[in-house]
Amino acid sequence: MADKKKPLSRHVLILSLSLNIGLILRLLYVDENWEAERGIHAAFCMEDNHQQTGGASKLEIYSQVIGKMKSVSSSISPSYDTRMQVENRDRIVNLDHGDPTMYQSFWEQMGDKTTVVINGWNFISYFSDAKNLCWFVEPDFVRAVVRLHKLVGNAITQGRHIVVGTGSSQLYQAAIYALSPNESPDPMSVVSAAPYYSSYPLMTDFLKSGLHKWAGDAQNFSKSGPYIELVTTPNNPDGSTRGAVVNRNEGLLVHDYAYFWPQYTPISFVADEELMLFTVSKSTGHAGTRIGWAVVKDEEVARKMTKYIELNTIGVSKESQIRAAKILNVVADTYDELGNPKEDAFFEHGYRIMTKRWNQLREAVKRNNLFSLPKFSSSFCNFSHRKYEANPAFAWLKCEGDIEDCEKFMREHKILTRGGKHFGFSTKYVRISMLDLDANFDLFTERLSRIRQ
Amino acid sequence: MADKKKPLSRHVLILSLSLNIGLILRLLYVDENWEAERGIHAAFCMEDNHQQTGGASKLEIYSQVIGKMKSVSSSISPSYDTRMQVENRDRIVNLDHGDPTMYQSFWEQMGDKTTVVINGWNFISYFSDAKNLCWFVEPDFVRAVVRLHKLVGNAITQGRHIVVGTGSSQLYQAAIYALSPNESPDPMSVVSAAPYYSSYPLMTDFLKSGLHKWAGDAQNFSKSGPYIELVTTPNNPDGSTRGAVVNRNEGLLVHDYAYFWPQYTPISFVADEELMLFTVSKSTGHAGTRIGWAVVKDEEVARKMTKYIELNTIGVSKESQIRAAKILNVVADTYDELGNPKEDAFFEHGYRIMTKRWNQLREAVKRNNLFSLPKFSSSFCNFSHRKYEANPAFAWLKCEGDIEDCEKFMREHKILTRGGKHFGFSTKYVRISMLDLDANFDLFTERLSRIRQ
Repeated sequence: MADKKKPLSRHVLILSLSLNIGLILRLLYVDENWEAERGIHAAFCMEDNHQQTGGASKLEIYSQVIGKMKSVSSSISPSYDTRMQVENRDRIVNLDHGDPTMYQSFWEQMGDKTTVVINGWNFISYFSDAKNLCWFVEPDFVRAVVRLHKLVGNAITQGRHIVVGTGSSQLYQAAIYALSPNESPDPMSVVSAAPYYSSYPLMTDFLKSGLHKWAGDAQNFSKSGPYIELVTTPNNPDGSTRGAVVNRNEGLLVHDYAYFWPQYTPISFVADEELMLFTVSKSTGHAGTRIGWAVVKDEEVARKMTKYIELNTIGVSKESQIRAAKILNVVADTYDELGNPKEDAFFEHGYRIMTKRWNQLREAVKRNNLFSLPKFSSSFCNFSHRKYEANPAFAWLKCEGDIEDCEKFMREHKILTRGGKHFGFSTKYVRISMLDLDANFDLFTERLSRIRQ
Repeated sequence: MADKKKPLSRHVLILSLSLNIGLILRLLYVDENWEAERGIHAAFCMEDNHQQTGGASKLEIYSQVIGKMKSVSSSISPSYDTRMQVENRDRIVNLDHGDPTMYQSFWEQMGDKTTVVINGWNFISYFSDAKNLCWFVEPDFVRAVVRLHKLVGNAITQGRHIVVGTGSSQLYQAAIYALSPNESPDPMSVVSAAPYYSSYPLMTDFLKSGLHKWAGDAQNFSKSGPYIELVTTPNNPDGSTRGAVVNRNEGLLVHDYAYFWPQYTPISFVADEELMLFTVSKSTGHAGTRIGWAVVKDEEVARKMTKYIELNTIGVSKESQIRAAKILNVVADTYDELGNPKEDAFFEHGYRIMTKRWNQLREAVKRNNLFSLPKFSSSFCNFSHRKYEANPAFAWLKCEGDIEDCEKFMREHKILTRGGKHFGFSTKYVRISMLDLDANFDLFTERLSRIRQ
């Protein structure tokens, strides 16, 4: 028996060792592929922090800022705090753009839940859904959009057309194309109440289109005949809740609901307008994905918007649509079937940060008598079942007293903002992004509180 | 010694068995994640075969076609061949669009090599590369583009600006925006020699821009002053090799090199023009990715093109850029350091299919005296080191004799094509896509060969 046992255990050992070698080789192979692809991706992400502001000079400044931030974050030494204070003193804080980098940490916490894998042989075709008048929209993206609106209760989607766009900028241009008559001798007037989103005039007029023309502040608009009015609510830049102001029979409305989400404002009604625009840039923070959507009542308008996107870009990136669908679904998954938040609920997380930031900003403004901020009344949110004040994605800061050019004043204190004149308004105001990284936001409020004239 | 050996081998055995269990568990975990993500993707891909043609009636026809194709391909029974013949007799073949579905099978063969994994926290920002004047271009995409042009030798990239676009359509619009003076009283004339790409007039004029205006066939252009001439080579629709035809001092040229790749035409020179357009849709077949690039000499032109894309869509999908970079790199990886093709070399594969298809089409045309095709002289390809004739991505078919409306004639035989008038040319011609699925292409040539007037 002993003689027989010996070879058996030896056999088992050999078998076991062989199995180990096999398994190790297999694991190395799998890990290699896995890591190779993660590695490729990680390499891309390194570039994510390189940002710019549009103008060449601002660009250089921003590179310098990022460079300093990187050196600060990578240094761990006893003199860290002191050095950071010294470096921060000189650092420029750029809050000109509404780059939603604040959201990065939330998505990091969510780990692999939002990972998307795309194989080389998918999305070869231009076409996504032959049955849909918007033939380039991915059905899973439409389902995710409808699901999220149903959960949040911020917009009616039943019986509506969903048109996907390369961000809501493209959809805005598609909308004014679709709403402007093709055979009119004069271009259609496009208006919005000041302060209005600074890109509206540029996007309307940069091609000198004969179809539509920017006609400025809706409050001063008196020309007879048809017109398009843009209603952004909550408004960019000032966070106010808005309705149409011209209110004439011949007016066509475009509602920009980019910020109509619970982290920014109480959802006190279900939006049900003719043409409503949304975007992932501001709802989930994925600005680089360039995905927006329009919810459209009229079939002919949806068809003309689709035509615009066909002529402009022959559809919209399938990869971005797939990723946006995944992300919107993961947001919805952070709530149970009854709409109650789970532990890591997305909108609760966003609401907590925005409330904290607004409190921090209001505290900083109190420290001197140089600035003022808009006040918001509180409303009941039908989604989160609580009453609260708006926490807009931008702060519309006014320089009080004799400071006439607030943008210039802020720049002198190494804070880059966007001045009121870009929004058709007074230079005493600036727009400040509330969606930047924690480190930048903290430095901004700390610096603001210490400004003395 | 014997006593001491026994426990040691037992220890080794236990250790080895534990390692077995550990490794198996680890492998199961890795595979589970891996498969889960592949699964997610597979669900998305189900929609890939739903395609459409643009017009509503064609759309319905196309749905019907796809439906039938699906039922054919899923049936495996003794009467399969007979049934397929019957079903094929009635089936409409749609070769109106240049949808490059032909490439799907190659990328399937490449398996996981082109798989891209994107996590939820990447590409939050609008910005990709602060140091680049095109601030939204991913550095890895630029590197992949430069690498592929260097390998193929079809375009100079050194010292040039690479501007990424949402397909080359957006880049075309960015180019004519950048080349048209902003303060001119008259719009800039845009011309191209007929037959020209059917979308050029539409893309130039659909917004009734005051900056530029379609002025038709370059061969008939006599207006004095500045103008833009589009040179597509090899040309869409007729596959001819082209140069500028107006040749006046005040002309600005845009070279569309979408089809200047070895599977379609011998690479007999290195292109080095002022403004050159390329796209993944036609080079690798990834039309749904909506990625094109411009190679631009003049910095100011590159800057204005970037401005157009900023105003139009605030940049270009990061996900699509990442995937396009991966795919272009995999294409380059199918060649060794000296540029010699490996077993599965991409352009050799494409060349083989295109040659086979063109032979098949020419054979079909010979069977009756109703049609004719362009003839191409052969040239030496500096990339593949062989002499061959062009194998264009479209066939420019002429109906001979008294058939005046070739598109209508083909439609009566259940073949959808795009008629010559869309290209500023005679209705005796049609453009036919050579890049569709095998089954469609085979049915088309088989049907064409049997047509009797």
